Amino acid sequence: MSLDGSGYSGLVLEKLSAAGVKIGDTITIKHDDKEYSGILMPRAQIGSDPDHIVVKLATGYNFGIRLTSQSKVQLTKRGTASKRPASKEIPEQTKGHPAVSILSTGGTIASKVDYRTGAVNPALTAQDLYDTVPELKDHANVTAKVLMSVFSEDIRPSDWTKIARAVATEIKQGTDGVIIAHGTDTLGFTSAALSFALQHLPVPVVLVGSQRSSDRPSSDAAMNLILATDFVGHVDAAEVMLVMHGETDDSFVYAHRGTRVRKSHTSRRDAFQSINTYPIFKIDSSSITEMNPPLLRRDPNRTLRLKPKFEEKVAIVKTYPGFGHDILDHLVDHQYRGIVIEGTGLGHAPKSLQASVAHAVDAGIVVAMTSQCISGRVDMDVYRTGVELQELGIVACEDMLTETAFVKLSWLLANMKGTDKVKTALSRPYVGEIEMRSEMAEYSTTAEEI
Amino acid sequence: MSLDGSGYSGLVLEKLSAAGVKIGDTITIKHDDKEYSGILMPRAQIGSDPDHIVVKLATGYNFGIRLTSQSKVQLTKRGTASKRPASKEIPEQTKGHPAVSILSTGGTIASKVDYRTGAVNPALTAQDLYDTVPELKDHANVTAKVLMSVFSEDIRPSDWTKIARAVATEIKQGTDGVIIAHGTDTLGFTSAALSFALQHLPVPVVLVGSQRSSDRPSSDAAMNLILATDFVGHVDAAEVMLVMHGETDDSFVYAHRGTRVRKSHTSRRDAFQSINTYPIFKIDSSSITEMNPPLLRRDPNRTLRLKPKFEEKVAIVKTYPGFGHDILDHLVDHQYRGIVIEGTGLGHAPKSLQASVAHAVDAGIVVAMTSQCISGRVDMDVYRTGVELQELGIVACEDMLTETAFVKLSWLLANMKGTDKVKTALSRPYVGEIEMRSEMAEYSTTAEEI
Repeated sequence: MSLDGSGYSGLVLEKLSAAGVKIGDTITIKHDDKEYSGILMPRAQIGSDPDHIVVKLATGYNFGIRLTSQSKVQLTKRGTASKRPASKEIPEQTKGHPAVSILSTGGTIASKVDYRTGAVNPALTAQDLYDTVPELKDHANVTAKVLMSVFSEDIRPSDWTKIARAVATEIKQGTDGVIIAHGTDTLGFTSAALSFALQHLPVPVVLVGSQRSSDRPSSDAAMNLILATDFVGHVDAAEVMLVMHGETDDSFVYAHRGTRVRKSHTSRRDAFQSINTYPIFKIDSSSITEMNPPLLRRDPNRTLRLKPKFEEKVAIVKTYPGFGHDILDHLVDHQYRGIVIEGTGLGHAPKSLQASVAHAVDAGIVVAMTSQCISGRVDMDVYRTGVELQELGIVACEDMLTETAFVKLSWLLANMKGTDKVKTALSRPYVGEIEMRSEMAEYSTTAEEI
Repeated sequence: MSLDGSGYSGLVLEKLSAAGVKIGDTITIKHDDKEYSGILMPRAQIGSDPDHIVVKLATGYNFGIRLTSQSKVQLTKRGTASKRPASKEIPEQTKGHPAVSILSTGGTIASKVDYRTGAVNPALTAQDLYDTVPELKDHANVTAKVLMSVFSEDIRPSDWTKIARAVATEIKQGTDGVIIAHGTDTLGFTSAALSFALQHLPVPVVLVGSQRSSDRPSSDAAMNLILATDFVGHVDAAEVMLVMHGETDDSFVYAHRGTRVRKSHTSRRDAFQSINTYPIFKIDSSSITEMNPPLLRRDPNRTLRLKPKFEEKVAIVKTYPGFGHDILDHLVDHQYRGIVIEGTGLGHAPKSLQASVAHAVDAGIVVAMTSQCISGRVDMDVYRTGVELQELGIVACEDMLTETAFVKLSWLLANMKGTDKVKTALSRPYVGEIEMRSEMAEYSTTAEEI
């Protein structure tokens, strides 16, 4: 095979081609008086540091060597890409280890670069996992399944249903905890969805992603996965949580409540934040610290209540100056059943929308209000305009995240009959998504003090 | 006059009625062995602490006395509400003080409670200002005008035009600085709009709001206004900034860059945060500290370039799982000229939208991409899906806030001919709204460490 699709370009591609090596070959690179040997890796992410050659060293770590046009570099092929070994081998089971199920849905964490074929493989098998992250063996007896293989921006409510059902199957088979590997873009939406769909959990369910793909030296994939596996197998809690880096260093991860977490940074490894509350656990390689009480403790005798259905005709609408009522009218005319208005401040929208809101409510649509501020609580009793919107029938979503309000409304509409019932349920806490009083300390200001 | 519309209710209203007092009367309250005298104030915000009587003490401060059904309370009327003095008096001018223009647009900061008439008066006159905040005299020679009187959720792009023109008039008349009092809900949108509309500023322009109305003991209105006045009269900077509390205590305020700031909490007094950058100045009662270099220094000889027009047919669309392309199609069919997609992560949207995006671009609509993460930078070169969206003609908005991208697109479409020109201008910095490299330190995590 050639280097097409390997992700290399420019100078680096030239040097690799000249040496006649391909992805998966064992090579030695002499570079400015240093020498490195390892397996040539492809690049999974387009356009990231195009000047690097990445090799997997014998230690299992990836290492990037930066070339410039001034670099003195000599590439030698030492061995040819080996065939992929016949998989399906059942990894050895260690007595006393918890049983952990890993379900893969796609995304960066699952876009493991297969250095045997050079393909960016969006699927994880149990064998792949043990190959890439051998440390998992020390923490749990892992079984792994590929549920789907999609970038998370393409996840739909029907996928939440599929994932929830697969988790239920694992739980029925007696697993001690379930991990879902998932892209980060809509990870917070899916964690909220599973929180509603999987009620009365006997064991913990943990979503995990990574911000940097595993061919990058800075990847957070392995650490997030190892700590999530250790955590889900041992923690005395049974709810849906999301585990990601707690700071940019590889020091610890947080387990956030599934209904209270969002991706707040495009690229940082500590992008996920609990909003209006603290994370539930802080986890490092030697300890699990409880920061906030979990909703339920682990209890293998508890029977899961599975409610996996979601209504797809629900929309989020963010308001802005000059927002046209035509957008709301469009949703009413197109048979939407629920609308979450992400309004301003304490839950306000332009006065010019009131007729359209009334029209939507008359049509039997549930209209809910959250705030684009993100932190804090909607309070529609403070100003006259908020009171008027409530009189029209809008439901104030308290301190719920917009994403969670959207997921919850979609879930309620699929599982509950009667608009009034849905409205009442929307503003009452089910799985920690609303707290009737928020603490002050959970909001941090951007700037460091001078 | 009666106590109708005074904002009092229940037990408190009963006690006030029984004593025969009305808003504006001087009263003495004996309450559980303590005695307070002052002018009876009405309540501006609906539903906030209904058990309090609020009086303005001789010191000028508001004081709230909480009544319970167990309270021993005795109310005595000491004087009757005085007639409003004939206004239009020109406040005395102090030699050597800077000339500061205050333009009022409405919102909580301007909803001064008039204790003479009992009305919640949304207008500030210069005389009102001196009456309520006598300290202003010590900082500047203030002139004040009422431009409009609206809650900020009702501000439209045409209002930005009106405000920009009014600021230009003040500058032409030789003011040393302009303050705009404005509701907080869309304060960040207006600060971005003025940043584009008022180019090449000779003096600083500062937007100021308050999160708690001036009849509440916790109001931030006076402090924000005093420090903003002092700041705008003296600081050696000439750009559009937004001044609000820097922490919940009354210790200091920040001056944020107009294009980089958003309301990030529904109710806290330090709700406004600079995103992806630091505030420009930190201001307390004794000093102004520069945290970030201003775009321009003060220069009275510089000539303002006024570009006050904005296109109203621009929309923000936030994506979510299952987002229907029908919403994008609606915007194309309804002659929108610009669409900002607030996508996920590094700037992604469901693959199912690609045909609608292509359709929109073909129709001559400028389609831009920002991230609902809020912090960080859109990077559409990392994953294949981002590359595909760019190939369809979407403009990646770098590290620009969604709100700022929306305002900028509206401004460019009104001031520049040719879609290609607008697209190129959108992703290049004009007034500090984009930085080509962001610092790490400006993102703070939610949780305190354990």
